Amino acid sequence: MNLRDIGEFGFIDRVAPLGAIRPEGVVKGIGDDCAVMDLGGPDYLLMTTDLLVEKVHFLFQWGSPEVIGAKALAINLSDIAGCGGKPLDAFISLAIPDRIEVEWLDRFYRGMSDIAREYSVNLLGGDTTGSKNDLLINIALTGSVPREEVLFRHTAQAGDIIVLTGHPGDSAAGLEILIGSTDLPVDCAPDLVRAHLEPRPHVKEGRLLAESGACTAAIDVSDGVSSDLGHLCRESGLAAVLYENKLPMTQELMTIATRMAIDPLDFTLHGGEAYVLLAAIRPSRVADLEDLFEQRGCELHPIGEFAPGTGIQLARTDGSTETLAPRGWDHFK
Amino acid sequence: MNLRDIGEFGFIDRVAPLGAIRPEGVVKGIGDDCAVMDLGGPDYLLMTTDLLVEKVHFLFQWGSPEVIGAKALAINLSDIAGCGGKPLDAFISLAIPDRIEVEWLDRFYRGMSDIAREYSVNLLGGDTTGSKNDLLINIALTGSVPREEVLFRHTAQAGDIIVLTGHPGDSAAGLEILIGSTDLPVDCAPDLVRAHLEPRPHVKEGRLLAESGACTAAIDVSDGVSSDLGHLCRESGLAAVLYENKLPMTQELMTIATRMAIDPLDFTLHGGEAYVLLAAIRPSRVADLEDLFEQRGCELHPIGEFAPGTGIQLARTDGSTETLAPRGWDHFK
Repeated sequence: MNLRDIGEFGFIDRVAPLGAIRPEGVVKGIGDDCAVMDLGGPDYLLMTTDLLVEKVHFLFQWGSPEVIGAKALAINLSDIAGCGGKPLDAFISLAIPDRIEVEWLDRFYRGMSDIAREYSVNLLGGDTTGSKNDLLINIALTGSVPREEVLFRHTAQAGDIIVLTGHPGDSAAGLEILIGSTDLPVDCAPDLVRAHLEPRPHVKEGRLLAESGACTAAIDVSDGVSSDLGHLCRESGLAAVLYENKLPMTQELMTIATRMAIDPLDFTLHGGEAYVLLAAIRPSRVADLEDLFEQRGCELHPIGEFAPGTGIQLARTDGSTETLAPRGWDHFK
Repeated sequence: MNLRDIGEFGFIDRVAPLGAIRPEGVVKGIGDDCAVMDLGGPDYLLMTTDLLVEKVHFLFQWGSPEVIGAKALAINLSDIAGCGGKPLDAFISLAIPDRIEVEWLDRFYRGMSDIAREYSVNLLGGDTTGSKNDLLINIALTGSVPREEVLFRHTAQAGDIIVLTGHPGDSAAGLEILIGSTDLPVDCAPDLVRAHLEPRPHVKEGRLLAESGACTAAIDVSDGVSSDLGHLCRESGLAAVLYENKLPMTQELMTIATRMAIDPLDFTLHGGEAYVLLAAIRPSRVADLEDLFEQRGCELHPIGEFAPGTGIQLARTDGSTETLAPRGWDHFK
């Protein structure tokens, strides 16, 4: 049997039981943006890890070494944000093929270091080894979050308002431009390409949500809104409805998607690598939080609500309703 | 400039300053078996990570999937042992090429799970992705150690006795047999091959050393005794002398090395992937600790001592003394 047959999540479901060995100290093991551990200190320890493979996750020609380094760390910072945490220390493993020059690696590290400084994260130990073929980057990142503030996926409640902290479609549209699947030149949509290559992790937004006491669940949008909202629904045992006319889209996305002859809604609902947060907010607190986010220079877009049941409904602007099937990214399918 | 020109350690020295961003909470960053963090809890948090690349670190034909999985975790457990810690939670990242079957991965996880259970370690989140070519395995492992018990590399003192907790030459001799660099059949030396494929992490020995209050410094022997003792000497600002006639060698190593026409001392002094501990013990406590280790079914071999100065001297059995140059493994040289 091949991994294509069962997919990434099928594989995780298969091996997860083999790993649950010592329950003490584990608040949440597999199945959230981070693992959450209780080591007896004042805060919970968060841990996330991401593995990036050349030609699977990135191509050298897409960006400078600085950009590749910064993004590698940013996507881990986003996982910490999804749990409402503060990032602490990153551990970098690199498998480096012969053709990579030290000067490239210096610039890669400088890119990581710049974003690390912005978030007060150390780049500590790790492992460095040779590789026969491709460059591989694994980052393991710790974080901390006050015990009462940690945000999970499984704790949304019926009636909670679904919010986004940014524009999830831009990154996927930028990727389409980068991979040249359209005739559009790379410089036609700098903000979309930047959304893909230089995502800003929503750590600040995650802390605001966590501190507010109004957020019942959150996830960072890495696979796509439909797929990641599907995770929140399944884990929380709820259904959701999304309103088409409330989904946030940038002018650039709408313009470029039209030129690509792709519905911008497709990017917004299904585009991966968005690294904005998708969260559940107590309905009585939405107005407060919108004010707070605005004061702090952040965005908060209510886009729908959770309800009893299963599945995701999309309420179209024309008054019709359709079932939204998750169409997110699976590395093996 | 290529990594071959500066080597793995030259590269680490080059990038380490870029990563030291937030000193608070970091007890030890780069340059020990583990990073050591103070999160305000009763114990320090330890963190280590190892990246294994197919054809660089292992070949499929060498062992069953279970053996490869168990070793991947064991070498991380050994790093926690080198700091005197107790392992806690492992995070597994895999880049999986198409040709690997789910059945192979099931068995790989089973091997990891078996050794994880032995050491009460959880296999938690991680990341699973595709790979264009080779299988890659990155494990990040946390551990904990009481604050006053943590073992570093930089704290050995002049006069301390150098000890080994096992036989460091066996693994490298087993590797020579596995790679077929001799005419000897693989089944000629099962204990040596097992030392290479199924190393037992010396977590128990590490805890005994840490709890004893008699151990001033330790390291796990992954690059070879000469190289890893070199780390202890440099970090502690000391010289060392080793006594040839005290270096522990198994009968099988001596027999097989002779058949290979290689001096068994070469394996013992320079062989990598030994995963025994090399430690510094206060001289007044050596006899106590030897008794304690024997009672607990462990080995402790005094092999030399630390002295003021620099460099490592080897006192030969014939009364002569020579300078020992580190000849350990560097992935890029």
